[in-house]
Amino acid sequence: MKRSAIRELLKLIAQPGMISFAGGLPAPETFPVEPLRAAADKVLTTLGSQSLQYSESEGIAPLRDYIAASHSRPGYTVRRENVAVVNGSQQALDLLGRVLLDENDTVLVENPTYLALLSAWRPLGVRFSAIPCEADGLRVEDLPALLQANPKLAYSIPNYQNPQGSLMSLPRRRRLAALLREYGQPLVEDNPYGDLRYEGEPLPDVFELNARNGDAGVLETEVIRTGTFSKVLAPGLRLGYVVAHPSVIDKIVLAKQSTDLHTASFNQYLVLELLQSGLLKSQIPKIRDFYRLRRDAMLAAMARYFPDVVQWTHPQGGMFLLATLPHGANTSDILSTALAQKVAFVPGADFHLDGRGENTMRLNFSYNTPEIIEEGIRRLGQVLHHALAQCPRQPAQPVTTAIFSASGGKLTKSSEASALRR
Amino acid sequence: MKRSAIRELLKLIAQPGMISFAGGLPAPETFPVEPLRAAADKVLTTLGSQSLQYSESEGIAPLRDYIAASHSRPGYTVRRENVAVVNGSQQALDLLGRVLLDENDTVLVENPTYLALLSAWRPLGVRFSAIPCEADGLRVEDLPALLQANPKLAYSIPNYQNPQGSLMSLPRRRRLAALLREYGQPLVEDNPYGDLRYEGEPLPDVFELNARNGDAGVLETEVIRTGTFSKVLAPGLRLGYVVAHPSVIDKIVLAKQSTDLHTASFNQYLVLELLQSGLLKSQIPKIRDFYRLRRDAMLAAMARYFPDVVQWTHPQGGMFLLATLPHGANTSDILSTALAQKVAFVPGADFHLDGRGENTMRLNFSYNTPEIIEEGIRRLGQVLHHALAQCPRQPAQPVTTAIFSASGGKLTKSSEASALRR
Repeated sequence: MKRSAIRELLKLIAQPGMISFAGGLPAPETFPVEPLRAAADKVLTTLGSQSLQYSESEGIAPLRDYIAASHSRPGYTVRRENVAVVNGSQQALDLLGRVLLDENDTVLVENPTYLALLSAWRPLGVRFSAIPCEADGLRVEDLPALLQANPKLAYSIPNYQNPQGSLMSLPRRRRLAALLREYGQPLVEDNPYGDLRYEGEPLPDVFELNARNGDAGVLETEVIRTGTFSKVLAPGLRLGYVVAHPSVIDKIVLAKQSTDLHTASFNQYLVLELLQSGLLKSQIPKIRDFYRLRRDAMLAAMARYFPDVVQWTHPQGGMFLLATLPHGANTSDILSTALAQKVAFVPGADFHLDGRGENTMRLNFSYNTPEIIEEGIRRLGQVLHHALAQCPRQPAQPVTTAIFSASGGKLTKSSEASALRR
Repeated sequence: MKRSAIRELLKLIAQPGMISFAGGLPAPETFPVEPLRAAADKVLTTLGSQSLQYSESEGIAPLRDYIAASHSRPGYTVRRENVAVVNGSQQALDLLGRVLLDENDTVLVENPTYLALLSAWRPLGVRFSAIPCEADGLRVEDLPALLQANPKLAYSIPNYQNPQGSLMSLPRRRRLAALLREYGQPLVEDNPYGDLRYEGEPLPDVFELNARNGDAGVLETEVIRTGTFSKVLAPGLRLGYVVAHPSVIDKIVLAKQSTDLHTASFNQYLVLELLQSGLLKSQIPKIRDFYRLRRDAMLAAMARYFPDVVQWTHPQGGMFLLATLPHGANTSDILSTALAQKVAFVPGADFHLDGRGENTMRLNFSYNTPEIIEEGIRRLGQVLHHALAQCPRQPAQPVTTAIFSASGGKLTKSSEASALRR
């Protein structure tokens, strides 16, 4: 088991004066502190000790019902039996790995992909197989060949992927949903950032395009949809969920029982109260406006301060972007210099499967104010100018097929972002 | 992975009119609802969004410091580095199994033992080896022979064990602590019920008897002490902890990172606030008085309503007792009849390692009021009278060496309980 690079870094960057683009922290200014205080008061007044007692491993019934209803569509019905509540979507990934994967199983993942997914499943002894990616998502046309290896699971973040911020296009979503059904291929669709959309129209989840009512009203789907309230409410409540076929939910619940019995009842009642109060209707637009400013501030500062030879992605949502330095540059080495200049990022190599990505860095734009982002990117720009001065002055080479490949021209879809990109 | 018998039963017994002695639920009347409401208000007012943000996998520093200080003694110092915060002590057991145990490892456990420990560690492919037990705890004199098999871990609940309610004596604790040190044998000392003491003086933990200051002030101990706030505050907060050597804590924290990142920050700040307010000083005596009445009510009702041939343990604390029917009786069969008569218990076989215990049942006395306990035991007495009418009228045979063995005369240590026993 490898120590998570991100979380170790989080300790280093706690030094005073440090500007960190390393973590994946939401902005605390967006947390609904006052609504939560009112919710805690109401839950303890009306439910009292019931909200503090042991509860079912599946999650409390009214919260499961709420999640089920919010995932139902005219073409199919999600029921309570399709939902399990967990301690943030990270626990969903951990439990799914434990109940669905065996040693030497093949798992298809986007490359680069979410670091903590790799940390959670690597100890199981599985083999990760990379799905080539482009600016508009994984190369669905390559999937049939990859599926010949009988992967036990596939994993994707279609919305504003971590670490790249890429967004899977609607045609690719449709084709992926159909392929999963055709091959009976299970896919974990992780969607922590879907609501953090700063431009463009919302796209349907792969789950939505794949799910259908089966016999006896049982939901049929190859997609295992994980979700979380960490980004739209607050991460410190640790509340996430899985929506899937009942056979998958049953296995998760079995594992959950012996793992930690159940997710905190109190937190489930708190979040249910917030959801029923309609808070998200005002909360999500507020968060979008808030984070859009920060993304734009980072893109503008990068355009101003970063060396010409550096390229970066232009996410339409989410919390991260990925910058790529010229081939030969090593962002792990550069990090030491950056930390000395009181600015932090996550070197990109750990997100990559194939030993590449040494010249990439992940930058978070959700946590810092626009002013601090400007100052941090200025510092980082100086560090990069210095570090790259020794390098041959050649343009950045794409380290993966992601983002910078064939459809490179589609990198920037919004006119604002386009204007900021040089 | 085997579906937990207890939690499945919990659903059945949700039927109206059912009197359940099956679960391990604390009494909701003891939950500090009003102090928690005040704590939630204070935490959200003074800390605000900080209490809702991501936090360290180890747990928040002030809570770890509090737990460390409360486990320090004049002879040794427990430090922050010795403490990890988890989602209830069940998660501690799950994480410990995952980081310390490999397939085919031998694990020493009391027999019978905590069902969910077996559920958590059985999927790892370990071999459980039974430690013979008596009324005053595991047979320490048998340990040297058992340690020849090089068990990777041992597991014990010295205080008011689940399912028997037995209490390890001070001499056995001393000898156990010394043996662990002599053999370098790691022991998980699980202590969910230690504060629920209804008679007798408190005994030192095995951890307390084993820990010592090592070189450079590092705590040396073979004991991995798990604890929880579920019984003295409320289980729906899911807050537990591990106190151990830093090398063990480091491994737990690694696993915790990829499992669910960290325990809910908000719940940690809530519990810290309750602890710092000194609530436990009034809360623990209140809970003791409350549960003592219920234990006594159950013992009195059993003496009145149970057939002569049934024997049972007389716990000095905790939440459970174990009743033993004559050899040949099967409590799993009897359970169906009992449920039809609207009374529930947990058949004892699942707590046992060796295929025995079919004629035992675990009864919980913490959840129901004395009046309901009386009525439930009356119903169960009728069921037992009917079920045992067909059996040869022979006294109960001990199914394990626990409780009813050589030191059987010491079963009942208190005069009150003695008076109740027939």
